[in-house]
Amino acid sequence: MKKSQLSVEVCFSPALYNFHHNVDKVVVVVDILRATTAICSAFMNGVSSIIPIGSADEAREYKSKGFMVAAERDGLVLDFADFGNSPYNFTPDRVSGKQIVYSTTNGTNAIQMASSCYRVGVGAFLNLDALALWIASLNREVVILCAGWKNRFSLEDSVFAGALTDKLIGEYQYDTKCDSVLASLDLWEKASPNLIVYMLKAAQKARLAANGLDDVFEYCLTPNLTTIIPVLEHNLLIPFDSKILNGNRIGAIAK
Amino acid sequence: MKKSQLSVEVCFSPALYNFHHNVDKVVVVVDILRATTAICSAFMNGVSSIIPIGSADEAREYKSKGFMVAAERDGLVLDFADFGNSPYNFTPDRVSGKQIVYSTTNGTNAIQMASSCYRVGVGAFLNLDALALWIASLNREVVILCAGWKNRFSLEDSVFAGALTDKLIGEYQYDTKCDSVLASLDLWEKASPNLIVYMLKAAQKARLAANGLDDVFEYCLTPNLTTIIPVLEHNLLIPFDSKILNGNRIGAIAK
Repeated sequence: MKKSQLSVEVCFSPALYNFHHNVDKVVVVVDILRATTAICSAFMNGVSSIIPIGSADEAREYKSKGFMVAAERDGLVLDFADFGNSPYNFTPDRVSGKQIVYSTTNGTNAIQMASSCYRVGVGAFLNLDALALWIASLNREVVILCAGWKNRFSLEDSVFAGALTDKLIGEYQYDTKCDSVLASLDLWEKASPNLIVYMLKAAQKARLAANGLDDVFEYCLTPNLTTIIPVLEHNLLIPFDSKILNGNRIGAIAK
Repeated sequence: MKKSQLSVEVCFSPALYNFHHNVDKVVVVVDILRATTAICSAFMNGVSSIIPIGSADEAREYKSKGFMVAAERDGLVLDFADFGNSPYNFTPDRVSGKQIVYSTTNGTNAIQMASSCYRVGVGAFLNLDALALWIASLNREVVILCAGWKNRFSLEDSVFAGALTDKLIGEYQYDTKCDSVLASLDLWEKASPNLIVYMLKAAQKARLAANGLDDVFEYCLTPNLTTIIPVLEHNLLIPFDSKILNGNRIGAIAK
């Protein structure tokens, strides 16, 4: 692959996405606690495809048509749904080989906002190295879209954006003129020596804990459990295994 | 003054202000490079009041009525204006005792967005300590509104927000549940040992340099040159000298 000097941008909120949008770009959607971690986890456990749905009403409609539906708002499972948003819900016995419908507070709306772009991928610590490799293989400018919380800035998404841009700039020669990237890199530098301890202060950690949903906290911060990138194709998330980009070893393309 | 346990929030862009807005709060508007630094500088040099104007057309109208107008867009002085946005333009001989109209790319719009709030103040490194004292004296929740650049996140405004929240939390017992504050504090911790060197990477530094307008860069990062807070009263910025809060010494209230 040709070394690129392409730009990377970070968008800290869906409400700012309008100022970064360009259909020619690659967009990576990030909602670490917990939507995009759960989506990566589902594909790791063999789900065949995911229909990302923004509205709860639409999710309910899918359920009435017989689909398996994962749906929640503010961390609480919607009454009609089969299960909620925890990555732990997407066990192999439950999802392997199946199509599921997925709707959540922030993450799925962000995926839909970017749907007209060149490629849309789903990112989390779980697929960090694979994600950087996949982005670099596309040879396009990239926007990392942080889903945040109700359009507000979220620490865990921004720190992840720093981890990913650090890799894109350091290993794949991406460039930036975006202050959001510079801030994300500094946050990642501060957080990375002990990511789990650093992230204890995040507002979303407290929100999850208030509902007894923070059992997945450390799991959501675990890097490189999978080589699969969930990618959007015709409004459907399907798995792209980055292993095909360079044999078996993630990251080898950069060395 | 009673020690408070009030909340502080940081809003990284005018496009996110809607999610922080509350008429009962104090709002501090920040546009370090260069609008709010220029406004603080103008009051330091004796301007009697400033009419902050969002649109260039409105500024032109004021000019035709005989007002002295400072106005620019993207760092360039508008053709009808008396002068532009540089803090160095607001010299005592030019502005002392006078009312001026002021319109700029990002800063004045941000001031107008918050105009229905309990109090709106203008912040910059130039009045950092005085600003914290003034905020604490109001005994209300506070939002630091970063003007950014065309609604995008800006490093210098966010680092300043970290400097101010550090003071509010450390010296005036403010509290936060806002991830933007946590990020700002970490950026300030990283930047503060050598603020000027740190800030060289900011996108706005490069934008100013491209137009030969970065001569004010170091000045804009200089703390505590003035005790005056420009505050909004009936859509007019007027000076409030924080010296009256605690005699002559800024910060004494906190000790």
